[in-house]
Amino acid sequence: MDNNAVAAVAKSVRTLTIDAVQAANSGHPGMPMGMAELGALLYGEVMNHDPTDPVWPNRDRFVLSAGHGSMFLYSLLHLSGYDLPLEEIKQFRQVGSITPGHPEYGHTPGVETTTGPLGQGFANAVGMAIAEEMLAARFNTPEHTVIDHFTYAISGDGCLMEGITSEASSLAGHLGLGKLIVFYDSNRISIEGSTELAFTEDVAARYRAYNWQVLNGDAYNPDGIRNLLEEAKGDLSRPTIIILESEIGRGSPNMAGTHTVHGAALGDDEVAATKKVLGVDPQAMFYIDPAATAFFSNRKDELRTAHAEWRKKFDAWGAANPGLLAQWKEAFEGGYREVLKDIGLPQYEPGASVATRKASGEALKAIAAMLPNVAGGSADLAPSNNTALPEHGHFSRDNRAGRTMHFGVRELAMAAIGNGMALHGGVRPFVATFLVFSDYLRPALRLSAMMKAPLIYVLTHDSFFVGEDGPTHQPVEHLAAMRAIPGLRVLRPADAEETGEAWLMALEHEGPTVLALTRQGLPVLEKSDRKWKDAMRRGAYIVRECTHDGPPELVIVATGSEVALALEAVERSGRDARVVSMPSRELFEAQDPAYRQALVPEGVPVVTAEAGIAQGWEAIAKSRDRVFSIDRFGESGPGKAVAKALKFSADDLAEVLRGV
Amino acid sequence: MDNNAVAAVAKSVRTLTIDAVQAANSGHPGMPMGMAELGALLYGEVMNHDPTDPVWPNRDRFVLSAGHGSMFLYSLLHLSGYDLPLEEIKQFRQVGSITPGHPEYGHTPGVETTTGPLGQGFANAVGMAIAEEMLAARFNTPEHTVIDHFTYAISGDGCLMEGITSEASSLAGHLGLGKLIVFYDSNRISIEGSTELAFTEDVAARYRAYNWQVLNGDAYNPDGIRNLLEEAKGDLSRPTIIILESEIGRGSPNMAGTHTVHGAALGDDEVAATKKVLGVDPQAMFYIDPAATAFFSNRKDELRTAHAEWRKKFDAWGAANPGLLAQWKEAFEGGYREVLKDIGLPQYEPGASVATRKASGEALKAIAAMLPNVAGGSADLAPSNNTALPEHGHFSRDNRAGRTMHFGVRELAMAAIGNGMALHGGVRPFVATFLVFSDYLRPALRLSAMMKAPLIYVLTHDSFFVGEDGPTHQPVEHLAAMRAIPGLRVLRPADAEETGEAWLMALEHEGPTVLALTRQGLPVLEKSDRKWKDAMRRGAYIVRECTHDGPPELVIVATGSEVALALEAVERSGRDARVVSMPSRELFEAQDPAYRQALVPEGVPVVTAEAGIAQGWEAIAKSRDRVFSIDRFGESGPGKAVAKALKFSADDLAEVLRGV
Repeated sequence: MDNNAVAAVAKSVRTLTIDAVQAANSGHPGMPMGMAELGALLYGEVMNHDPTDPVWPNRDRFVLSAGHGSMFLYSLLHLSGYDLPLEEIKQFRQVGSITPGHPEYGHTPGVETTTGPLGQGFANAVGMAIAEEMLAARFNTPEHTVIDHFTYAISGDGCLMEGITSEASSLAGHLGLGKLIVFYDSNRISIEGSTELAFTEDVAARYRAYNWQVLNGDAYNPDGIRNLLEEAKGDLSRPTIIILESEIGRGSPNMAGTHTVHGAALGDDEVAATKKVLGVDPQAMFYIDPAATAFFSNRKDELRTAHAEWRKKFDAWGAANPGLLAQWKEAFEGGYREVLKDIGLPQYEPGASVATRKASGEALKAIAAMLPNVAGGSADLAPSNNTALPEHGHFSRDNRAGRTMHFGVRELAMAAIGNGMALHGGVRPFVATFLVFSDYLRPALRLSAMMKAPLIYVLTHDSFFVGEDGPTHQPVEHLAAMRAIPGLRVLRPADAEETGEAWLMALEHEGPTVLALTRQGLPVLEKSDRKWKDAMRRGAYIVRECTHDGPPELVIVATGSEVALALEAVERSGRDARVVSMPSRELFEAQDPAYRQALVPEGVPVVTAEAGIAQGWEAIAKSRDRVFSIDRFGESGPGKAVAKALKFSADDLAEVLRGV
Repeated sequence: MDNNAVAAVAKSVRTLTIDAVQAANSGHPGMPMGMAELGALLYGEVMNHDPTDPVWPNRDRFVLSAGHGSMFLYSLLHLSGYDLPLEEIKQFRQVGSITPGHPEYGHTPGVETTTGPLGQGFANAVGMAIAEEMLAARFNTPEHTVIDHFTYAISGDGCLMEGITSEASSLAGHLGLGKLIVFYDSNRISIEGSTELAFTEDVAARYRAYNWQVLNGDAYNPDGIRNLLEEAKGDLSRPTIIILESEIGRGSPNMAGTHTVHGAALGDDEVAATKKVLGVDPQAMFYIDPAATAFFSNRKDELRTAHAEWRKKFDAWGAANPGLLAQWKEAFEGGYREVLKDIGLPQYEPGASVATRKASGEALKAIAAMLPNVAGGSADLAPSNNTALPEHGHFSRDNRAGRTMHFGVRELAMAAIGNGMALHGGVRPFVATFLVFSDYLRPALRLSAMMKAPLIYVLTHDSFFVGEDGPTHQPVEHLAAMRAIPGLRVLRPADAEETGEAWLMALEHEGPTVLALTRQGLPVLEKSDRKWKDAMRRGAYIVRECTHDGPPELVIVATGSEVALALEAVERSGRDARVVSMPSRELFEAQDPAYRQALVPEGVPVVTAEAGIAQGWEAIAKSRDRVFSIDRFGESGPGKAVAKALKFSADDLAEVLRGV
């Protein structure tokens, strides 16, 4: 790519950006204008990608962590030949377009992840770089290299101020992810004004402290950037951050370098003035420099050819390594779901006392033995979360084939890295911490749900039964808060057997799943419904049927540890109630009315029981005083003593039952 | 304090810790044992405090950010003479004790903040140091110094891995908070094993990059620690981190230095062996070295005398500065609440279109003019949140009297710093960001609620009416998720007038308040209930009464922007419905049944309307199909176009009303 082509592409990024933002009268022109030359280089020269096949597994990944600069992406995807026609750019930020305000994964070809909530894209990129290393270790052979790509990201000062980025950067440096290259768009402007107002740390020194290679350059010197990239790739022992001094809104004669150009349209006059500076007719709307078109027309073919050459290598590799090829299909094409039915889950004796976190650990071991694409870990709580897989090694600088991740005490980065691993493809990741700390990772959990990223969250210590650690460690509102997230599947299994099935359900599912698990032992239940495994996939099933004939006179709906509590309360109350285990309220509520009626018939009194807040259960219990819940913070003490203090024992529930 | 006294106190911290944890068979002995000498120095020599008056405003603050080491605090509070009798230590981690598993603010004298969720204590300490600077600038005179204290904290590697700590540290360095001194308990052990597994960054270099003074020492050399403290205090232009090389579980002959001693009782044998090493009779339970008792008996008197001397200075200052003294009482003794009735809130014409974020900014200006203790800011969104107070300057290294905080893009640290400012006393803080980013600060929001910290959260852009920024920026589940937190007051005012009242309610309240505010303009409403301001304090009031006599045939309950939508839908539907504005569902639900019945009578159909998920509204609407809600993520487009796409227009609601 010669520098004239760089200039033509950069000019086109600027003209497309200012017109799109002006047409929408909304958006963020500053970042795309400031980074246009870098974008030209990345999409035109640096990245191995194939606009005709945006999901080619060995493509370089690009993450726009500063997601508000979405026109940067859309301009370059359009120019470089992705299926993003100019019409869509004219529809920027309109309902039904594929050019929403912030880039959305699954919505626009070439968008690798949903960004906008700051810092998460950076951590996603770390996850993608981890996945690349894992897959390279697993699939490459001395003869053939089928996975070998870089992960690039652009970060602004907003991302660098966010704690998630610190967490992710510290871990990336620790792991020595040399094929991760982040550009820092250092334009010294934030929304409230100069970064001097709040952000005067020495970013370069901080990144050196994290064990990153730190390079500095000028955003408008293509040859300089080329040299920096060469230097970055010359040291593959650690990630690289390239700090580019830049000017926000570059090209706008009156607004460049100021915070006014960050997040608003330039206005007609300044759009015209900018076009003049760029040497473009102010009347020309959505102008594209013909030299840019010509360049990419040729470049697109080169890239397709490169992809075809990779395909040849891949076929040769597959022929020489049929076992690996089969694993590849399992890993990249969802084939692992076929394996699920062959997984021999651990068996438990009814009545045995097993904490569901323990059963989860045992299920995970059985699964990991059969599915080499399953990998993940905990935010420094593996011994408590039961997520360690020592038999498969831990992922480290020295062991890229290791499958247990040591994330450190970095919940939010962990979840966003997990999203990045899931989005990369080829890996089926899980992450873990205490349920109460789901608050720390919630921003990433939301994006898992929005992106339908198949990440599994193992969240243990799921109620006040945590005990002595006290209210700071006892979730009460977290189940409700997680169910509030649209599209998030929350499973709270009632015993060891349900826990194993919950793991299979999570792996069958094409989106994120939360497994909420107990610290304390729970009895393995005898289940009235012999087909409970099928029923569980519809959210709920009958664990205890009434002994009398005809419809039930009382139904108790419970989740997790409260199913056993409900069974005990039935005994103590003398009420012949049906007990329904409802590991997933959302799944149950999504069933047809007939199914719901069959389990929870209209007109029959219903009591719900869950060791958390009432919110949401009124829909099933119909009446607030039939919701057996905890609507306050907990207490520090042994679980049973806390249950007593909170009036949440089997006797308390039995009293409710007797009163219905 | 001579070094024999240090040793005697440290020994006593260790013996109390191991016996308390053993008695509870639960807890974290490693940290208190490792930091016992530092604790002796802090409580015995370094800190200006008065165990007989734990809320003395000018005391040095101490924050145990590594809150799991709660026995560190409890031992030292007991030994140094706080009202924490030995009996309570024997009841460690039991229901009803004042020695819960993690330190809880408001529960135990001398505990400055609730810690345990890692990193938050660190940020609380930053907030306390900010409050100290603000108050010193405001109250000290050339003649008298009434505020002049240090803030100390102990942080473990867990805290330092958390992103919140990075955010808070970057800001603390930027602000040059020289009276903040953090000790890093560098024991190189995390729960999963050595910190080598996940945390190999150069912490000292990172803190230098943040503009901190970084000092290194040995946790078991009291003279060395004294010298380091002198050095720390010799440079008041920047905060100091003192990295102490330490040994977790120091004193335990077989378990010290390993992760087994982090979070579990030592076991009877190791307790006995440890006592032997410490020169204590293994049979002696809850042993306290008599030299420690003797030392603190004397020290307590010295400290009380020092406090009395401060009091004399304070009285002289008050006599010389009666205006400042009055302000002091307002600030420290809740007197500012008296001022609230005199605040002239801006007036609005019915029908005028005003975004509630704009009305909030105007109310805040009026309040800040009257209440000099109100201070706060935004996570780099002040122009959007309408929270800037340029007339009062911004808090910076050069202007400690400034009242606008530039927090940078650091939501979680912002909220935890706000908690610290609130807990310090003397300041009534507020923080701000977009409602959708409440996810980022949720861990601190939970602790605000648990601690009843009077922090005001200004959360704007409260629904899909955000528009073009799209689903990543459109809250749908956040109101439900915040209402889920016990004790958190969520106010969603329906117009400019309600917004002003909501600010007053927040200032009247002795706990945290969320103000959920619109981006878009809303009409100022004519209100049927002339006493709506009183009624609003009970959560809800009638904004439109039916025109016919007798009880209503239909009630619509709406919040925020949906109140105007409901009024419009009533017009369009032709239904003569009562419309209730419910700015706070929790407050309403806490009223007596008569009040609730008067507004929302039993037996009358109720439709609820809120631009968020249904969860929780079934309790009021009784039936899911009468909850007008949004149970999916949003869309990028102009607000009205998104409303159409989501079927959330006045016409859509009118159709629901016609169907009831």
